[in-house]
Amino acid sequence: MADGTLAPTERSRLRRLKERGSFDRVVVDAILDEGLVCHVGFSEGPSPFVVPMAYARHGDQLYLHGAAGNRTLKALAAGAPACVTVTLLDGLVLARSAFHHSVNYRSVLIFGTGTRVTDPAEQQVASAALLDHVAPGRSTEARRPTDAELRATAIVRFPIVEGAAKVRTGDPKDDEEDLALGVWAGTVPLRLVAGEPVASADLAPGTAPAPSVHPYPDRRR
Amino acid sequence: MADGTLAPTERSRLRRLKERGSFDRVVVDAILDEGLVCHVGFSEGPSPFVVPMAYARHGDQLYLHGAAGNRTLKALAAGAPACVTVTLLDGLVLARSAFHHSVNYRSVLIFGTGTRVTDPAEQQVASAALLDHVAPGRSTEARRPTDAELRATAIVRFPIVEGAAKVRTGDPKDDEEDLALGVWAGTVPLRLVAGEPVASADLAPGTAPAPSVHPYPDRRR
Repeated sequence: MADGTLAPTERSRLRRLKERGSFDRVVVDAILDEGLVCHVGFSEGPSPFVVPMAYARHGDQLYLHGAAGNRTLKALAAGAPACVTVTLLDGLVLARSAFHHSVNYRSVLIFGTGTRVTDPAEQQVASAALLDHVAPGRSTEARRPTDAELRATAIVRFPIVEGAAKVRTGDPKDDEEDLALGVWAGTVPLRLVAGEPVASADLAPGTAPAPSVHPYPDRRR
Repeated sequence: MADGTLAPTERSRLRRLKERGSFDRVVVDAILDEGLVCHVGFSEGPSPFVVPMAYARHGDQLYLHGAAGNRTLKALAAGAPACVTVTLLDGLVLARSAFHHSVNYRSVLIFGTGTRVTDPAEQQVASAALLDHVAPGRSTEARRPTDAELRATAIVRFPIVEGAAKVRTGDPKDDEEDLALGVWAGTVPLRLVAGEPVASADLAPGTAPAPSVHPYPDRRR
């Protein structure tokens, strides 16, 4: 990466609980690389939209993709200001008091504007990055996109320049006077777990398992 | 619930792959009730924000909450148009072709404006709903919020009136001519799994386990 930290801005700095924030690209990239789905926010007129999308980080940018007619990608390609958020849920935090209940999580917000990728070579790079993000090596297993398929696909590049990570870990933080209440307090760890791959009903008998998902690798960074 | 379906609007109807969409409140509510985190989208000036938040459905509305100084809740309480999205990730879809790779998921987008909850009785109802959403019965275990804690908390009510669910399930849909490629195709199931609860380091020895999380219930609806 070009730079080890993101420069804080008015909209990316944390106003509260600043100790939970980070502009460190190592922290930011680890969250982006572990996540599978981002939530893309943009507006059409006065109306905000928040749309879940697949994505991949490639160096200092995110690639988003979908059908050429996709509303979100059209808005991004047209230069709509956007916010791309990735959230990883790590646990529930149960305090003695209702007030101090919380969630352990790692999230990244990236602010900026996207650009449609039109260069065929970069489109192939992005396509491979999107596959390998989900299942490392998958781009060497699957048939690559044809020119016609690339024309039917919208790929948008979104720079990782402005944004921040936010992380909460650890135990509940109860008030001193609540510690003796006799109420159980602690955390419930949460993890996104991949099950055994299930072959497509139309898979030809004898087809070799895909190394990219047999077994599916641990995504935890 | 008052009505079995949400009325489609220009921004909530699906433009593509309409067979994946649903306005059925049974479908919408099941997704909202299974999810743990929503992504709230709103704008400050030209800049969109997408912020992960805890939430709970209570009848025909969502409750969102956080610290009184929370930027997102302040914007919602001030009447900013918003979009609240909940996404459940069910699996990776690996096709023979890069082009047909996809993700199995269930998501809900709700559009509208929020209202700050100021009535103390409704604040207690919302607080209980927020706890019980995460761990059923937790509101009867934890100490209830005091008046001072309620003053330090912002709770926002968000109506479930306009929005839609979107669901993808099943196998990859490869092109006929790719079926014989010899590339493995299928799905990798994904599930958010709760681990064994971990007691807080400062938990008094002998404190009884909390029925709400011992064991943690299956959230799948």
